[in-house]
Amino acid sequence: MTKIMNAQWRLRSRPVGMVKESDFELVEEALAEPGEGELVVRNHFIAFEPAMRGWLNDVRSYVPPVGIGETMRASTVGEVIASNNPDYAVGAMVSGMLGWQKYAITSGQAGPMGRLTKVPDGVAPQLMLSALGATGLTAYFGMVQVGEIREGDTVLVSGAAGATGSVAAQVARLKGAAKVVGIAGGPEKCKWLVEKAGLDAAIDYKSEDISKRIRQEFPDGVSLFYDNVGGEILDKALLAMTDFGRVVLCGGISAYNEEELPPGPSNYMQIVIRRLTVKGFILIDHLAQAGEAIGSLLGWINSGELIHAEDIQEGFENTPKTFLRLFEGQNLGKQLLKISDP
Amino acid sequence: MTKIMNAQWRLRSRPVGMVKESDFELVEEALAEPGEGELVVRNHFIAFEPAMRGWLNDVRSYVPPVGIGETMRASTVGEVIASNNPDYAVGAMVSGMLGWQKYAITSGQAGPMGRLTKVPDGVAPQLMLSALGATGLTAYFGMVQVGEIREGDTVLVSGAAGATGSVAAQVARLKGAAKVVGIAGGPEKCKWLVEKAGLDAAIDYKSEDISKRIRQEFPDGVSLFYDNVGGEILDKALLAMTDFGRVVLCGGISAYNEEELPPGPSNYMQIVIRRLTVKGFILIDHLAQAGEAIGSLLGWINSGELIHAEDIQEGFENTPKTFLRLFEGQNLGKQLLKISDP
Repeated sequence: MTKIMNAQWRLRSRPVGMVKESDFELVEEALAEPGEGELVVRNHFIAFEPAMRGWLNDVRSYVPPVGIGETMRASTVGEVIASNNPDYAVGAMVSGMLGWQKYAITSGQAGPMGRLTKVPDGVAPQLMLSALGATGLTAYFGMVQVGEIREGDTVLVSGAAGATGSVAAQVARLKGAAKVVGIAGGPEKCKWLVEKAGLDAAIDYKSEDISKRIRQEFPDGVSLFYDNVGGEILDKALLAMTDFGRVVLCGGISAYNEEELPPGPSNYMQIVIRRLTVKGFILIDHLAQAGEAIGSLLGWINSGELIHAEDIQEGFENTPKTFLRLFEGQNLGKQLLKISDP
Repeated sequence: MTKIMNAQWRLRSRPVGMVKESDFELVEEALAEPGEGELVVRNHFIAFEPAMRGWLNDVRSYVPPVGIGETMRASTVGEVIASNNPDYAVGAMVSGMLGWQKYAITSGQAGPMGRLTKVPDGVAPQLMLSALGATGLTAYFGMVQVGEIREGDTVLVSGAAGATGSVAAQVARLKGAAKVVGIAGGPEKCKWLVEKAGLDAAIDYKSEDISKRIRQEFPDGVSLFYDNVGGEILDKALLAMTDFGRVVLCGGISAYNEEELPPGPSNYMQIVIRRLTVKGFILIDHLAQAGEAIGSLLGWINSGELIHAEDIQEGFENTPKTFLRLFEGQNLGKQLLKISDP
């Protein structure tokens, strides 16, 4: 193989408070030769998720933290350009946790975040990072398996214009929810949720009284709350639940960049008073059922019943900057970065 | 019936912050004659539970608040002394939500807190208020139906020397938990938990480093946490859960007398990271299965496998004072007040 220069964004220092571009450093070096059983992938798209912020903290969690000096962990999709592995032919499009780098050498085996996946024929590669990727699958499993969405549910979704929230809200609608309302920031996102994603209503947390609007939309209460945000929004939603309501905790982006953990929800005793069930979950526990989820999601996408939005930035040099867009609330739908042409 | 003077403790004013004796007033007046289908009960024992504090607040909850000027709601056990109801003969011992009064007139029908129950033959009347009463049944259902206690569980119980916690912890032991540890206040309660109630260990929150002691007792984590306290103890326990652990929220006595709701647990994102299930519950939803619970509890009590403690104060004039003992942490086991001799 001709000598290739690789570029990687590595973790320079653990962020304190809001993550900054300077917490990462760009390193260029010659790409090594793939070893036995290994292949080389040229990354086309990098995906960004709020949960990645948690991987930068040196704390016990569901995966080890990214080490100082290590290439930042992230999902990507790209093309196999060299291969010593009979399972992956040159020219194949694959998706996996290949990190913030132009080229990745991998064995394709399963790590704590799952194995390399081939992009199915006829599927746009970046779909493997959005509706069919970690965020889409998280939305599906969170709503179907964890939230046990059922016909007649009254559903509230926070972070509803994000990659996970927007799919979760639509899965609720497709599974027969009586009402689905999303909470998002700004009129553009709220308009998209109602006019494009088919939600019954959207609440703009930046300009509206959240509690009042939730009460208006759900006079008989929320039977299922799918939370991506935490903080004040979770606290207010807890006051609006039906008896025996379910709360799915998917994430809490409002606190990911806080130096000190902010207080939890003052209204948590509503869990007792309203006899709620609150469940947390992580995608990796559900990957064995990924086939079912991908089948359902792809069917809805192909029939036009489920739409998805992608916010595609460009240029490998903009990798950390693109990550920050998540915490600035700039993205509508999945935040992606295109770093090379397929 | 000879004219009888009744005495009642009525709610004078809604408590602000810590409940005070002066929030209640003692009223004496002649007892009315029982109407058609009604009976008169002479109360012998009054039971006290932390949840009663919540009934004094004018907020939406699982039962309506006690009204200003109304007799304080509470479980009692007493003797039928007059009856126009063929279901309840004079001389029968009965238990029900008959309130802070010497004599009660009741139809015996079900209200939001359940109907009048006859004390089974051979059962000490006050047992209907403790191990076989609201707190004992709450402990049983919370551990068995809500917590789904199973063999091998590693169980932590807060408020473990209270009426509910002490039964919950022992039910866990009897159902095959691998380890049961209680958190309580002071050496006397901790000693009782280990030496009498058969727990594996007790943590004294007043003198020990709770987090450190939990880690010592549960190096592999807590699989089931039964919480009666909330606040700091809940926050710390959340950091010690196993993956897929369960948290049963039974109550949160630490905040019942706070004027402003204190912050919730900062560590609530552990629910996501550790994939926890947190469930709240209220006894009234489980009363249809009360027979099963009473049968199990009575069997264990009669065989000596489950012990229960009662803190019995005396004198109707001491009713509000006895209620306050709960929030001062003075009671070991069930707080009762004896107001007349059986």
